Amino acid sequence: MTDARMLESYAAGSWFRSDAEGDPLLDATTGETVARISSSGVDLAAMVRHAKQVGGPAVRELTFHQRAMLLKEVALLLSKPDIKAELYDVSFKTGATTKDSWVDIDGGIGTVFSYSSRARRELPNSTVAPDGPMEQLSKGGSFVGQHVFTSRPGVAVEINAFNFPVWGMLEKLAPAFISGLPSIVKPASQTAYLTELAVRRILEAGILPEGSLQLLAGSAGTLLDELTVQDSVAFTGSAHTAGILRRHESVLHGGVSLGVEADSLNCSVLGTDVTTEDPEFDLFVKGVVAEMTVKAGQKCTAIRRVIVPGPLVDPVIEAIRARLDKATVGDPRDESTRVGPLASLAQRDEVRKAIEALRSAADVVYGDPDASVGDDRGAFIQPVLLRAHADSTQVHDVEPFGPVASVIGYESTSDAVQLAARGKGSLVGSVVTHDADVAREIVQGIAPWHGRILVLDRDDAKESTGHGSPLPVLVHGGPGRAGGGEELGGVRGILHHMQRTAIQGSPDMLTAITGRWTTGSQRDVEDVHPFRKSLAQLQIGDTVETGSRTITLDDINEFAAKTGDTFYAHTDPEAAAQNPIFGGIVAHGYLIVSLAAGLFVEPNPGPVLANFGVDNLRFLTPVKAGDSISVQLTAKQITPRQTADYGEVRWDCLVTNQDGEAVATYDVLTLVAKE
Amino acid sequence: MTDARMLESYAAGSWFRSDAEGDPLLDATTGETVARISSSGVDLAAMVRHAKQVGGPAVRELTFHQRAMLLKEVALLLSKPDIKAELYDVSFKTGATTKDSWVDIDGGIGTVFSYSSRARRELPNSTVAPDGPMEQLSKGGSFVGQHVFTSRPGVAVEINAFNFPVWGMLEKLAPAFISGLPSIVKPASQTAYLTELAVRRILEAGILPEGSLQLLAGSAGTLLDELTVQDSVAFTGSAHTAGILRRHESVLHGGVSLGVEADSLNCSVLGTDVTTEDPEFDLFVKGVVAEMTVKAGQKCTAIRRVIVPGPLVDPVIEAIRARLDKATVGDPRDESTRVGPLASLAQRDEVRKAIEALRSAADVVYGDPDASVGDDRGAFIQPVLLRAHADSTQVHDVEPFGPVASVIGYESTSDAVQLAARGKGSLVGSVVTHDADVAREIVQGIAPWHGRILVLDRDDAKESTGHGSPLPVLVHGGPGRAGGGEELGGVRGILHHMQRTAIQGSPDMLTAITGRWTTGSQRDVEDVHPFRKSLAQLQIGDTVETGSRTITLDDINEFAAKTGDTFYAHTDPEAAAQNPIFGGIVAHGYLIVSLAAGLFVEPNPGPVLANFGVDNLRFLTPVKAGDSISVQLTAKQITPRQTADYGEVRWDCLVTNQDGEAVATYDVLTLVAKE
Repeated sequence: MTDARMLESYAAGSWFRSDAEGDPLLDATTGETVARISSSGVDLAAMVRHAKQVGGPAVRELTFHQRAMLLKEVALLLSKPDIKAELYDVSFKTGATTKDSWVDIDGGIGTVFSYSSRARRELPNSTVAPDGPMEQLSKGGSFVGQHVFTSRPGVAVEINAFNFPVWGMLEKLAPAFISGLPSIVKPASQTAYLTELAVRRILEAGILPEGSLQLLAGSAGTLLDELTVQDSVAFTGSAHTAGILRRHESVLHGGVSLGVEADSLNCSVLGTDVTTEDPEFDLFVKGVVAEMTVKAGQKCTAIRRVIVPGPLVDPVIEAIRARLDKATVGDPRDESTRVGPLASLAQRDEVRKAIEALRSAADVVYGDPDASVGDDRGAFIQPVLLRAHADSTQVHDVEPFGPVASVIGYESTSDAVQLAARGKGSLVGSVVTHDADVAREIVQGIAPWHGRILVLDRDDAKESTGHGSPLPVLVHGGPGRAGGGEELGGVRGILHHMQRTAIQGSPDMLTAITGRWTTGSQRDVEDVHPFRKSLAQLQIGDTVETGSRTITLDDINEFAAKTGDTFYAHTDPEAAAQNPIFGGIVAHGYLIVSLAAGLFVEPNPGPVLANFGVDNLRFLTPVKAGDSISVQLTAKQITPRQTADYGEVRWDCLVTNQDGEAVATYDVLTLVAKE
Repeated sequence: MTDARMLESYAAGSWFRSDAEGDPLLDATTGETVARISSSGVDLAAMVRHAKQVGGPAVRELTFHQRAMLLKEVALLLSKPDIKAELYDVSFKTGATTKDSWVDIDGGIGTVFSYSSRARRELPNSTVAPDGPMEQLSKGGSFVGQHVFTSRPGVAVEINAFNFPVWGMLEKLAPAFISGLPSIVKPASQTAYLTELAVRRILEAGILPEGSLQLLAGSAGTLLDELTVQDSVAFTGSAHTAGILRRHESVLHGGVSLGVEADSLNCSVLGTDVTTEDPEFDLFVKGVVAEMTVKAGQKCTAIRRVIVPGPLVDPVIEAIRARLDKATVGDPRDESTRVGPLASLAQRDEVRKAIEALRSAADVVYGDPDASVGDDRGAFIQPVLLRAHADSTQVHDVEPFGPVASVIGYESTSDAVQLAARGKGSLVGSVVTHDADVAREIVQGIAPWHGRILVLDRDDAKESTGHGSPLPVLVHGGPGRAGGGEELGGVRGILHHMQRTAIQGSPDMLTAITGRWTTGSQRDVEDVHPFRKSLAQLQIGDTVETGSRTITLDDINEFAAKTGDTFYAHTDPEAAAQNPIFGGIVAHGYLIVSLAAGLFVEPNPGPVLANFGVDNLRFLTPVKAGDSISVQLTAKQITPRQTADYGEVRWDCLVTNQDGEAVATYDVLTLVAKE
C-alpha cells in the first residue's frame, strides 16, 4: 500500500509531497490503491501569501478579456486528445462510466469555454465593471452616482465534493479567475487524484500567471485560519461540513465570505394533466431513471423525491422498475454498464444507512440495498426505489447519496407545491407537464424554494439538457438546505466574487474612475472628426458637435410617403391635434434618428466600419415642423476585441432642438479598426 | 417612574401592552422617563404565524406597482404637517436636533417615496420580475432559459439601531414590502418610542394590508427560534450582536438568511494634490466636522479616520479645531445647538471607554471627553479630536460611537490606500481631491473595502449630499467589519429579498410562467391589427405579420440624399466593396427600421398613442439593393400604469429578408390607452 504514489500539492510556487504516510485512495471498482493523500507539512500560510502577493496582482493586471483569453487556452489545452484521454482513463477509477466522465470532464471544459466567451461579450475590456446606469443624484447634474464592481485583493478557496473532480474544480476556478482572484483548489480526498492530474496539466502548460492557481491535496487543516476580509470560501459538499465552516471564527468575525452549495432533496413533479398515454409520462420516468443512474445517483442535483398524482403512483413505479431492469450495474470500464460503483465502500455504507432510515416510512419497491453486486471489493449497489407512506416526513429529510429515489403521491396541484417545499430548499426541481396553467401554478409556487427549475414536455424534451445538469449560463445553487449559495449564471458568477461599490462624484470624476464617459462630463471637440480616429487614437470623451438641420413639413410628408409610415400623428393634422401626447403633427422618431445620423456621420472610408446597433433610444421631446435639431456624439466606451483587428465603440448620442431641449438620447454602437 | 407609559407591540393583529414593569427609556437631554419597554408576554410565534398566514398572502396578491402605490400613501401620510410635527417633537427626546431629525424623519419619508417611484419605473406591473435576457440553451431554440425573481413565502424581521428610529424602520420596510414580504419591525429599545409612534400612525391609517407590518417593542427574545427557510433577518447595529445572530441555530442550520449592517471605521482621505489654499481643503475639513457633529457622531457612516498627507496634519487639525469651536453642545431643542446629547448615559460611557483605548496610541488635540457639559442628567459630551501616533493600530480598530475622530498622516497615495484598508471593510469612504488621477488611484484601491465612496471637490460640493448620507438609489453596506450586507440601491434592495431562479423550458412555457413573451414562442396573428387593441384587449403574443417590401438602390440613394447620411458604404460602390463587413453597397440601418415601421404601423387613430423609444436594436444581416424585408411585431410585455389611463407596451420586432434571415431585432416601446 505504501508503494502507491503520494498526491502532491502545488503550494507557493512548487509541487510539495508530504512525507507522512497519508490515507490510501482506492479504486471504486477494484479496491486497489490508486494513490495516497496527506496535506501534512504543507505551508498553508505560505500558500495564502503566495496567492495574495504573487497570483492576485498578476491576475488583476490583466483586463477581463485578457483573463478570458487565458481561460480559453486552458479549455483548449484540456480538449487535446491526449490529455482528455488521460483524464477519462483515470476517471474510471472514481467509479465513473464513460458517460459519467463526459459530464465531469467535457462538462468542465465546456464551462471554461462558456466563461471565456461570456466575459468577452458582456464585460468591458478593462478591470472595473460598471453595474447599472448612472444615477442622477442632484438637479443640476454636478453630483451623480455609478455602481461599479472591482476585484478583491484576496484569495478564493474552492473546496469541492468528490463527485465531480474536474467540473467542480473548473466551474469554480473560471469565474473566480475572471473576477481577478487567485484560487486555492481543495478537492475532496476520495477522487483528488483526478483533480490533481487536471491541475498538473494546466500548470505545466504555464498558461495562467504564477500564483493564480494552487492545489491543496488532503485535509484543509488550518487553511481557514489564514483567511481574512477580501478572502472567500466556496464550498460544495455536505450540510454537516457547511455548518462547521459557518461556525469558523474567520467567517463569524473575520469577514471571510462563505458560499455554500449543499446536497438537497430535489424533486420532480408530474403534472395532473398527464396520463400514461402522454409523451410526458415517459419523459418523466426517463428523467427519474437517468437521475438515479448517472454517476450512480451521486449528484447533488439528482432527483430524490418523485412527486406524482395519487392515481399515477402505481403506473409510475411500474414504469421506473421496467427501466431500472435495463440499468446494468457493474465495472464502469465495461461499455454495457449503466451504473458504476459508488465512490467508496464508506459511501455505500452511508447510502445503506439512509435507505434504512427511509424504510420507517417508505417501502422498497425495487432493488435490494444489501444485495451483493459484482466484485466484492467494489462499492456496488443496486438502484433502489421506495414508495413513501402517506405523510412520511423522512422522504423530505433523509438524503441517500446514491441511486435511490422515493415516489410520493399527491392530491392537488397546491398539495404538490406544499410537498416540494418540504424539501426546505433545493438546487433544482423538475415540472413535467404539457399544460401551461399547471406549469405556471407549480413553477410560481415552488420557485422560491429552488435555484433552478426545469419544465419538461414534448416541445423541449429533444433539446433539453435534463434535470441534473447545471449550465454555465444559469445560476446553480438554492436556498435553505441547498446552502443558500449561488454559482455560475454567466457573468453573475463572476460578479459574485467582486465588491460592488456606489461611487458618488462629479461626472468628470466618474468618467476618470470608471473609464466610461458619464453624462455631464466634459466633451472634447477637436478639429479631427472622431470617426477619423482609429481605436488606438480615440479617447473617451472625443466628441463631434454638428451643425443644425431644420425639419420641414415636407420632410415629414416625404418621409411618410417613402417609408409608408403614415401614422396619423405624422400625416393628419386634425387627428394629430387630438393626440394627448403630441397635440399636432410631429416628425417620426425614425426620421429624427435618420437625420441625426446625417448630421454626425463622416462619409469617407476610415476606421469606422459599421454601425451595428442602437441601445436605449428614448424620444423625449416631440419635434414639429420648423424645429431644428443638432447632435452631440461622444465616445463613451471603447472595447478592443482580443481576437480581431477592430473593436466596439459605444457613442453617447444627444439630439437637441433649437431651444436646447433634449429631443432624443441613445447609444450608437460601431465597429472601429484598431489601427 | 412606573407612571411612564409602557410601549406597545403590534402583534398578530392587535396592540399588546406587556404587564411587566419593563425598562425605563430616558430623555437623552433631561434624563426624564419617556416611556417603559418590555416584550414580556408577546406571543412571538403568533407574530410570525400572522405575518406568514395573513400578511404575506395579502401583499403577494398585489403587483409590484400596487405595493408601490400603497407605499406612496404611507409617505404622503407621514408628510402631513401634523404627523410630521409630532414625530419631530418626540425626536427631541432622543437627543436629536431639528437638523438631526430631518435626516431621520424626512430622510425616511424620502426613501419611501423613492422606492415607490423606482419600483413603478423599473419593475413590471406583476408579481414575477425577470432577471436578465433569455438564454438560448439549444441550437434549435426549443429549449431556453430565463432567470426570474419570485417572492418568498416568509417574513422579514428588521432589527434596527437606536440612532435612526424612523429612517431605519422605513428604509428596511419599503424594499421588503415591495418584494412581497411582511415585516416584523424590532427597533432598538433606547429610542423605540419614536418608531412606535411612526408605526402607530401608519397602522391607524389602514393603508397597508393587515399582517404586513408588525412591531415588536422590547427584546427580540426567542423570535429567531421561530424563523425558518424563506425568512430573513436584516440587522443594523454592533458587530458584537451581529456575531451572536450569525451563531444562531436558525441561521447556521435553519436556512434563515441574515443581512448585517455594522458600524465601521469609515475614513475620509485628503488627496496629495490639495493645498491649504484649495477649496478642497475647506470641503474636507467641513465634511469631517459635519460627520463629527451631526447626530453627535452617532452614525454608522460617520468619519472616524481622517487620513491626510503628512505635511497637512497640523493645518487640518487647526482647521477642524477652529470649526469645532463653533459647534455648540447643548439641548437639542435650543436652535443654537449644533451637537445634542448622546442617546443615553450608557452610550456616553461607551464612548469615553473607546477614547481611553485610543489614547494609548493617539493624543487628544481637541475636547475633553470627561468635561461636564450642560445638564448633568443629559448624555452630553464635547467633540473630541485625536492625532494618531505613527503606526497606531487602535485608530483602525476602536470605534467611538460619538463625536470623535482621529487624524492620521500618510506619505504616498498607495500608503493612504493601505491605511484605508486597515479599517477591514467600511460602509463609506470619502476622497477629497480635484485631481482625476489621484481620485482614480485612491478610489480603485479602496473600492473593494467599501460599499460607497464619495469623491468630493469644487465641482460637486454644492450639490453633494455628503459623506454620511446613504441614498435610496445607492447601495448601503460594506464588506468585512461593516457586516458584509447590502441594503437599498434602488431595485437591488428589493431583489435582495427575493429568490432568483433559473427557469428552463420551451419558449411557450416560459411565456406562460413569466408573463412576458419569449422569443420562439407562439405568435398569435388575428384579423385585428394589435395596434387597434386597447391595453385591456391586448394579449401577450398578439402579432402583426406584414407583407414585404423590396429595397432598391434608388431607395438607398434617396435616403442618403434626404438625410445627409452619405456614409461610403451606402453611396460609393468601390469603397463599399472594400469594407470588410459589407463588401458592397448596403442599406442604411436607419432606412431598414424606418421601412419596417412603414410595414407594421396602423395609420389610423386608435389606442396606440406614441412610440416613445427603441431598445436593443441590432443589425444582424446587411440588406442590399434588391433584398426584400418583412416584419413580425409581437406584444412582449404589457405594463399598465397605476396613475394614468394608458400604459406601456413593449413589442418584439423581428425584421427578416427574403431568405428568412434575421436582418434586425429590437424592442419597440409604445404608449397604449387602457380602454
